Amino acid sequence: MTVETKRIFVDLAADGDMADISGIVQEFVSATGLSEGIVTVFSVGSTGAISTIEYEPGLKKDIIPALERLAPSGIDYEHHKTWHDDNGRGHIRSTLIGTSLVVPFVGGKLVIGTWQQIIVINLDTSHRQREIVLQVLGE
Amino acid sequence: MTVETKRIFVDLAADGDMADISGIVQEFVSATGLSEGIVTVFSVGSTGAISTIEYEPGLKKDIIPALERLAPSGIDYEHHKTWHDDNGRGHIRSTLIGTSLVVPFVGGKLVIGTWQQIIVINLDTSHRQREIVLQVLGE
Amino acid sequence: MTVETKRIFVDLAADGDMADISGIVQEFVSATGLSEGIVTVFSVGSTGAISTIEYEPGLKKDIIPALERLAPSGIDYEHHKTWHDDNGRGHIRSTLIGTSLVVPFVGGKLVIGTWQQIIVINLDTSHRQREIVLQVLGE
Repeated sequence: MTVETKRIFVDLAADGDMADISGIVQEFVSATGLSEGIVTVFSVGSTGAISTIEYEPGLKKDIIPALERLAPSGIDYEHHKTWHDDNGRGHIRSTLIGTSLVVPFVGGKLVIGTWQQIIVINLDTSHRQREIVLQVLGE
Repeated sequence: MTVETKRIFVDLAADGDMADISGIVQEFVSATGLSEGIVTVFSVGSTGAISTIEYEPGLKKDIIPALERLAPSGIDYEHHKTWHDDNGRGHIRSTLIGTSLVVPFVGGKLVIGTWQQIIVINLDTSHRQREIVLQVLGE
Repeated sequence: MTVETKRIFVDLAADGDMADISGIVQEFVSATGLSEGIVTVFSVGSTGAISTIEYEPGLKKDIIPALERLAPSGIDYEHHKTWHDDNGRGHIRSTLIGTSLVVPFVGGKLVIGTWQQIIVINLDTSHRQREIVLQVLGE
């Protein structure tokens, strides 16, 4: 059994911009030479999220009103009083969606579906270079 | 340390039907003969989800209006323009709930509570045979 | 490769009270003496949740209206008919947020951000002593 870790950085616009990192995750798994195990994808920081989606332009737009339903942009947040900040909605969205994803691989290949991609979402109210930790455990 | 993987298929109706797969997951863990470790439960495809719930008929109904709050059925989705599809709400619900769950086991037993079951939810707008990957890592 | 498991108990008030358990999780990872791997944090029971947040008093308040959007307190739940219970909203909130979190560690340190803490949330409608399982897999 082996464990290997890699950090990547992804540039994303504010308020729900996302990137498909499936290719990067698969390349990392392949580079380890391992056949079977899991890869953990973890978003460092409290205004990002990790999930899966069919990565196509329509759903990239559809996520925006869904984020507004989880934590609207037009309401007051107590968080703003703590730091005189404006990203309360981004923090709450991150907590509800989640910052960690575990994907198994078999025969060196991630088991995600053909129309299912691993995404990082930036939920902050400004552009961010999101830091993502990838860690493989397997044999 | 050992890793073992199994695929299962679960027939589910449209728009929030769910199944309790705790028994199947426990049987797989038991069959490996391992004592301590994790099992990853991953839903292949972009309109399913994995979570835990007290699996009883009332909550199976209560999940439906909650899914409507996350992504209503009566609104337009940009996704429908991409594929002339009708399941935009299912994709968004899957992304928000999540497609992966990791459960520890100790003494060969999953640590879930007595009233807590592992579920797969079909969020597509049609009947689906959902593919689930179970993978055990432990010793 | 080694696996080690620990159970902790956290006292929390009703309806969205949370605790920062990052310190406890880090101490457990440190005590194993392992350098690189994952820790799984799992909430036993069907009315708790695990996630990450910037743990500060403002966001602790902001989570409450977000939980109300996911599953309001002023509506009927079928769950209440099953057990003559009153915590349907808590079950649905738990299913949507999730009960499991996996965090990598490197050099013996969790990779969470400076302003990102691991939290357990009690979503039941009464005070609960929540049981959390921590399990380290690494080398």
